[in-house]
Amino acid sequence: MTPNPKYSGLQTDLYELTMAAGYLETSFDARATFELFVRSLPARRNYLVAAGLDQALDFLENVQFSGEEIAYLRKQPVFGRIGGGFFEYLAKFHFSGDVWAMPEGTVFFPGEPILRLTAPIMEAQIVETFLLAAINFQTMIASKAARVTQAAGGRIVIEFGTRRAHGMESGVLAARAAVIGGCQGTSNVAAGHRFGIPIYGTQAHSWIMAHENEEEAFRQFLDIFPDHAVLLVDTYDVRAAVEKIIAMGRKPRGVRLDSGDLTADSVWVRQRLDQAGWQNVTVFASGDLDEDRIASLLAEGARIDGFGVGTAIVTSNDSPALGVIYKLVETEIDGEVRSAAKFSAKKVTYPGKKQVFRFSHPDGRFANDVIGLAEENFPRAELLLTPVMAGGNRIVPRTDLNAASERCMEQRARLPAPVRSLSGEAAPYPVRHSEKLEGLLDEERRRVERAARI
Amino acid sequence: MTPNPKYSGLQTDLYELTMAAGYLETSFDARATFELFVRSLPARRNYLVAAGLDQALDFLENVQFSGEEIAYLRKQPVFGRIGGGFFEYLAKFHFSGDVWAMPEGTVFFPGEPILRLTAPIMEAQIVETFLLAAINFQTMIASKAARVTQAAGGRIVIEFGTRRAHGMESGVLAARAAVIGGCQGTSNVAAGHRFGIPIYGTQAHSWIMAHENEEEAFRQFLDIFPDHAVLLVDTYDVRAAVEKIIAMGRKPRGVRLDSGDLTADSVWVRQRLDQAGWQNVTVFASGDLDEDRIASLLAEGARIDGFGVGTAIVTSNDSPALGVIYKLVETEIDGEVRSAAKFSAKKVTYPGKKQVFRFSHPDGRFANDVIGLAEENFPRAELLLTPVMAGGNRIVPRTDLNAASERCMEQRARLPAPVRSLSGEAAPYPVRHSEKLEGLLDEERRRVERAARI
Repeated sequence: MTPNPKYSGLQTDLYELTMAAGYLETSFDARATFELFVRSLPARRNYLVAAGLDQALDFLENVQFSGEEIAYLRKQPVFGRIGGGFFEYLAKFHFSGDVWAMPEGTVFFPGEPILRLTAPIMEAQIVETFLLAAINFQTMIASKAARVTQAAGGRIVIEFGTRRAHGMESGVLAARAAVIGGCQGTSNVAAGHRFGIPIYGTQAHSWIMAHENEEEAFRQFLDIFPDHAVLLVDTYDVRAAVEKIIAMGRKPRGVRLDSGDLTADSVWVRQRLDQAGWQNVTVFASGDLDEDRIASLLAEGARIDGFGVGTAIVTSNDSPALGVIYKLVETEIDGEVRSAAKFSAKKVTYPGKKQVFRFSHPDGRFANDVIGLAEENFPRAELLLTPVMAGGNRIVPRTDLNAASERCMEQRARLPAPVRSLSGEAAPYPVRHSEKLEGLLDEERRRVERAARI
Repeated sequence: MTPNPKYSGLQTDLYELTMAAGYLETSFDARATFELFVRSLPARRNYLVAAGLDQALDFLENVQFSGEEIAYLRKQPVFGRIGGGFFEYLAKFHFSGDVWAMPEGTVFFPGEPILRLTAPIMEAQIVETFLLAAINFQTMIASKAARVTQAAGGRIVIEFGTRRAHGMESGVLAARAAVIGGCQGTSNVAAGHRFGIPIYGTQAHSWIMAHENEEEAFRQFLDIFPDHAVLLVDTYDVRAAVEKIIAMGRKPRGVRLDSGDLTADSVWVRQRLDQAGWQNVTVFASGDLDEDRIASLLAEGARIDGFGVGTAIVTSNDSPALGVIYKLVETEIDGEVRSAAKFSAKKVTYPGKKQVFRFSHPDGRFANDVIGLAEENFPRAELLLTPVMAGGNRIVPRTDLNAASERCMEQRARLPAPVRSLSGEAAPYPVRHSEKLEGLLDEERRRVERAARI
């Protein structure tokens, strides 16, 4: 039986497989805990929004290797001396571990694990690359979308960017993450179908250009879509186009501006539509928009009811990669638990299984987070990591995208005002490590130093 | 029969489907020609490298709508008044058009069509979004990889970036495009399997950290992979790690530096390995590298044999979106051919079916390109667009990735030296429009102005 390539175990970096083979061949039978987190905020971000968990869990539940895939691996020179046991292991491979994670839409900060996975070390390595790719990407997009939707100040924002996404599948996943970050819909029909996201869109410049003239193009479209037509008015001349529509006496649902001076044109269009008695015809704007453009349009007094945002959201173009990493924090061999930390080149990885504890002010505003050990207990704090998979089985329902989006909007509103601002120069949200965790780090540092002296 | 979701027709923007419905309902029976091109170079790019054609043609050959997908569309409010004819059309939908394109690996410039498609206008609209997403992304990655491999000056460059790609599928396609841009391999096993790309990778920090100590970690790995072990030496202290390996007397294939002062460390490591008589043990470097870092490492005298490059290649992080667009240039209705152009907001789209003519100096260096009409003839020029699909059937073999990479390397070498430099401030490569094309543009401009006056 050939597995769905969506869940192929080959979706990994080669070193995960060589390490897995190494662990098997040396009978290194450890249960490992890895945590997924970022070391620092990307440029112009004061917070991040967790997303991509559903796709990560789908993969963990279904990952396998087909016979043909294993035959491919057997032919690789690097595995030339590896015995058959490793390939038999891959043939039976499935993920059997436990996972804790922040629900999608959770606002989080550097150093905080957003996912913690405990599994036989071979399994934990093989799934690393997929987990990182899934969570890195959607988290980056949801975090960007949260900024854009905040700039829009309650006006509708539709994700429009598939054509500029990093491939079609990236566009579909970006649409999903954009909704978590507060977008109300997408132009991507596959994303609408797969995830139940509302889909938007009416006509492109090519519709106008294909017709004998603009008026004919508008009339034909209104005939077919009398209740849904959002007419694109910037193909030749915005004001002339709006005058033609008004002269026709055919009220569209809205008009869309995709180029030019959006502030001046939207003010003129709004006024002209109102004069015509068309107060409920909406003005929609698109064309290389992002949070800064939207904020300045609105500050200038643009009269825009909704925004279509493409490239900026689907590529997070000002910060197009997120440094989510996956670090070993603990191993358990024959019942003996050992913490793992890393100290090289100014990068410290805290050891041990962790939890994130969030404290709030009495009025609901977030006060500070504490990264502590999983077994710690802070009675007044909310625990951000919750169990989502046990023994390889999902123990939570799939993410409800509306709920994830509401979680994000609610948590964004509870952030200190400077942190949720768009400036990117706010004093950082206060996050500290618990005393117990700092103690464990010191202990581990001393152990590594002792080992280095031997 | 459910089609492969890879080829689902829902992978499009909603407005493509509303326009298609509009054309069907109004019996607008045109054969349209669209061209795919960029208006301007992204920041820090002097040229671009065409890639993604194979995935675009795979889609065109296989795209269809399942019954379940059509049922989903029927439920969308926007299609509430659309008759059954449109859904019957979708049920039988297949792409029947003709396509001309530049072979993958071709170096090209703004304004030059890299793909020209002629098809019934409904088909041409429905496939637009996928074509753009496929070609935009891989072209952007191949163009970035061409810069990185140029900086490496013949040293091996391996694409390492899946975990930072915009989702797993994006990582697989980035690996493919990176090879077109001159990378010799990838860490992504699925990309190796799917596209026959050499795969690379040995061990991560987690392997070192999971073992009792570094020496034990190295020894175990060398036992399993005596001929392939590239040992990661920066987990704790680079020089101490290299001393341990030499003291063990176990020669690895190579060592990898992933952090720290790569120049100083690589010089020290090279010297120490040579002293040990290990001249053929290679030094491999990774860790947030890009073309600038590689160029400065080599300028500083770093002794590095190969580079692993991740984020910079798979996200094209300094220019993470490419503005490839898809513009209507001609329609044919009842045998009458009409050119289409667009003049709004300083953006001009040249009308008519085009060809790109490339002229070379007698010594092989590229001299200049002329964008002309498809029927023009410049005897000394090479024609960059060739027919790849006729009547919906592919008429060229699938891209041979090695050949595409060689094409890119060969064409890059034939560029004027300032254009292939990494500075991004070169005088632009000379590209002009033919007199016939300029004439057609003028004609079309007059036609639009006349129409506007009516």
